[in-house]
Formats: sequence, structure tokens, C-alpha cells
Amino acid sequence: MSASIALQKDVSIAYLGPPGTFSHQAVYQRFGDSVVYVPQKQITDVFEAVEKGRATYGIVPYENSTFGSVVETLDYLIKANVKVRSETYLTVHQCLLSNSPLDKINKVYSHPQGLGQTQEWLSAHLPEARRISVKSTAQAAEQASQEIGAAAICSEICSELYGLDIVARDIEHGVANTTRFLIIGTSSDAPTGNDHTLLRFTVDHRQPGALCDGLKIFKDHGLNLFKIDSRPSGLRPWHYVFFLECSGHANSEKVQLAVKDLNQYCLDVAILGSFPNERTDGDC
Amino acid sequence: MSASIALQKDVSIAYLGPPGTFSHQAVYQRFGDSVVYVPQKQITDVFEAVEKGRATYGIVPYENSTFGSVVETLDYLIKANVKVRSETYLTVHQCLLSNSPLDKINKVYSHPQGLGQTQEWLSAHLPEARRISVKSTAQAAEQASQEIGAAAICSEICSELYGLDIVARDIEHGVANTTRFLIIGTSSDAPTGNDHTLLRFTVDHRQPGALCDGLKIFKDHGLNLFKIDSRPSGLRPWHYVFFLECSGHANSEKVQLAVKDLNQYCLDVAILGSFPNERTDGDC
Repeated sequence: MSASIALQKDVSIAYLGPPGTFSHQAVYQRFGDSVVYVPQKQITDVFEAVEKGRATYGIVPYENSTFGSVVETLDYLIKANVKVRSETYLTVHQCLLSNSPLDKINKVYSHPQGLGQTQEWLSAHLPEARRISVKSTAQAAEQASQEIGAAAICSEICSELYGLDIVARDIEHGVANTTRFLIIGTSSDAPTGNDHTLLRFTVDHRQPGALCDGLKIFKDHGLNLFKIDSRPSGLRPWHYVFFLECSGHANSEKVQLAVKDLNQYCLDVAILGSFPNERTDGDC
Repeated sequence: MSASIALQKDVSIAYLGPPGTFSHQAVYQRFGDSVVYVPQKQITDVFEAVEKGRATYGIVPYENSTFGSVVETLDYLIKANVKVRSETYLTVHQCLLSNSPLDKINKVYSHPQGLGQTQEWLSAHLPEARRISVKSTAQAAEQASQEIGAAAICSEICSELYGLDIVARDIEHGVANTTRFLIIGTSSDAPTGNDHTLLRFTVDHRQPGALCDGLKIFKDHGLNLFKIDSRPSGLRPWHYVFFLECSGHANSEKVQLAVKDLNQYCLDVAILGSFPNERTDGDC
């Protein structure tokens, strides 16, 4: 996918802006200057930009190795009309930026993931400061640059972009803190021989044991599972949408048979897309 | 459990305070005046109060029917040294409380769950207001009562407790918005014949397909699955802790055999507790 994108000058990518977010850096790391960057105000706008044809592709944060899945992305994937085409990984170092010294900081802005990845550092060094969720880490920097006593948790690059001092570096909790992004479009690429497929399903609550039966299907068809997430379905309390990442491509017979079998136990099954596996480590 | 607690005057329950939180209301709905209430500043303190013997039991929010699992509770359950003894459900109606009129409100305090359950209302009615995460909904009310232009998303009861006007009622998004709480202690009760068991496990990443093999065990032993959650294990990137709720009691042969089999594919398996099923609906 990246090769074909690089050859097309009019390809655009929607991302969570403003400039300086980790999404922005993930686009740059993957595509450099070969694409048009289209910043969006929030993650849901990235999906809508692709759905409505305002951008060729979009990039959304999917999960972080320290603080887990990005709920806003999962919740939009319940209704999204896009295909996941690709994945990309970015090493994330969080900084505390401010124009006030540490002992004068009384509020900290960031995206919920930025606050989550640094919660141990914040509890140790700024236990009394208010933690304020905003739509992106770069928006946090913009906000912090306008207020005395305010700081942002964001990337180092925001220091220059928004005129803020670096008060502390590498304040994330996890070792090798990494964010995994999904690149979304309106179609999937052909199989490469080492692909993963992301599925979404809601089990039929009228069938006792349907979740067990549904999960067993992947074993029956020789597909490995790498990740499971669940979110409320919104249909009825304690009824969930499951997100499941398995080995194989949606065009393969194995995955197609598994989806067919899964439908027996589900109200709804959707293939969110297949993409080349970019990781070299094993199972989860 | 509730009957035995009601007979003991010196039984104490740690909960997420200050007074007026939904945790507080859940304790009152379940136990009334028969126990001593021990408010805590954050969810992790509730676990610690039980672990260190400062309270007989604790109550923690586990999941909400609209906004899903409570990440802070899951993350503490990775290391917790407690047993889940019981579950309880509370219908949750969120209010917007403030001493400023709606068009003067520029910041909104709440617990992340309060902000999540009302995000659609906030986007429609207060799109420009800052959303500020605090440790509990009642702490949000306390904070809002001290600032002009500030509001809290919390229960109606906080209006009286913290001297705030009710600006809007029932602003939660989901139909029948309900929070499920777990009651934790240092041991589990005996089987009742209709119990659920909460397990935690990390699969052995060196065995390809270990997650598939592990999940299949529940089907093999005739146990139903009701809920699956995952969180980063903290051991290595893209390695997860899974939380799994199944039918049966930890003392039953079925669950014991399933746990024994599960150990073959896992680095670690722990039974977090067994408790009477309080729900009458079916599978997830």
C-alpha cells in the first residue's frame, strides 16, 4: 500500500490534528512528504473524512502498549463504513511542556491516552494538578501555551510548534511505550501471505453459550487470535460488540468459512478489513 | 452475603467517595444503614483498604451498560489480592449541576465514566466547555460548587449535598443506563447453584494459538462465557491480561478442571472470585 500511495501526488490522509500529534508523526514516519496531510479535530472526524470522500485515507490510534485500546476508535468502528487497510507502529515518548516551572503547574492538559500513559508520573510529581482531557495532545499544547500554570502532556515536537518549555521528558510509564495505528480507506488490499483480519460481531443473546461457540470457530478453522476487545453494543444492557483480530486474509477460504460459521451464533458479523502483519513477534 | 453482613454491626465497606457518588448509592441500595461506610479518594484506595484490613469489604464500579468497563478497576485487578464476593446493579441517571446557567458554563467536571456516559449531550449542548476528569462524580460536584462557570456531571443527590442547582437531568446517552459494581473481600462465599466466576489470565506468548486453545476450554467443559476484557499485561508490548466471566463456582469440578487445562496455555491464571448471579437475562 505505501508504495502505491507514494506514487500518487493527490492522495490525502486525514489524521487527528492539529500538527504535532502522535498521529501526525505516524503519518510522517510512514509516508513522509508524498501525501497531503488533512488535520481533523477529533478521531471521529478522521473516520467521517474517509467515509465522505474528503480524504483518500485516514489514520486512527488503535491501541497503546501501556494504556490499552483507544475507546473512541473502537466505538466508531461499531458503525464505521470504512475498511482497515494497514497498520503502523510509533514509539511514543511523552513530555511535560509548560511555560511555568514544575512547582507552579496546577493543571495538565492531554488526550485521555496521554493522561493514562503518564498517570504514575503525574501521581508522583503533580498529585494536586487537575487532569484535563482534550481531543488531542497537540490541542493540549496549544491550550497550555495560553495559560499560566498550565502544562501539556504531548510530544517533544510541540515544544517548538507551540512555544513551550520542556519541563520533563520520557514520563510515560511503560517500557517501549508504543502506539499502534490503523490506516483506513474504502477498500482492502490483496493478500500478502502474512495478513491479519479485524472482525466485529455481536453474539445472539437468545442462544446460551453463543460466545463460547463463536470463539471456538477460530480454533476449528486453524486461525490464530491476537486481540479481543469488547464494548457495549448499545442494543441492550450487558450485550457487547466484540472486536477480534485473527490470522488470515478476508479473501482466504479459512476466514470466509469462519465468518460463515460465526454468523450462526451472531446477530451481526462484519469484516472491518485485512492488512499485512507488520509485527514479527508471536501470538498475544 | 447481604444477610450475614446485615447482622454484623462492625462490618465496614470502603467505597469511592466523597458522599454522593454512585458507589455510595450502590452501598446504600444494597446494605442500608447496617454497615459502616468508609469513603476513599480513588478506586485503587478501595482495593487497598480491603487488602490492608482497613475495611471488611469494598465496592468498586466494574462496568457501565453505556460506556463499558471501568479501566481503573480492571488495571487494579491485575495485581489485586482480594476476592470478588458479590455483584450489585444501580440505575444511573446523570445530572448537570452548577450555580451558573447553561450558557455561562465553560468547564465540566466528572469521573471519566460520567463524561463518557454523557458525551453526546455535552457535544450537543456544551460543545466548547472543557471536560475535566476527576476521581469521582461527587468530587466533581464539590469542585464545581467552588468555581463560577463550572458544572459537574453527577447524581441528583449532589445538588443538596454540595449546594448546586440542577441545570439538566437524565443526560446520559444509553437507555436504562446501569452500572454494575463488584463487592470485594478477602474470601468467597459457598456456591448457591447459580454462580459466576471471574478469572484473570495471561496466555503463553511462546505458544502459537494459545489464546484460541485457552478459550476453547470453556466450551469443552460446558461453561458459558458472559464477558471478556483485555488490558496490557505490562510484561511486554502487545501481551494482554484477559478477564473472563464464566458460569459456575470456583469450587465446582467443572471450573477447577477448566482452570487446570487453562494453565497449560498460560503464564498465569488466577480466580478473582465467584459470586451469585444477580441477573436474570441470558448470555452476552
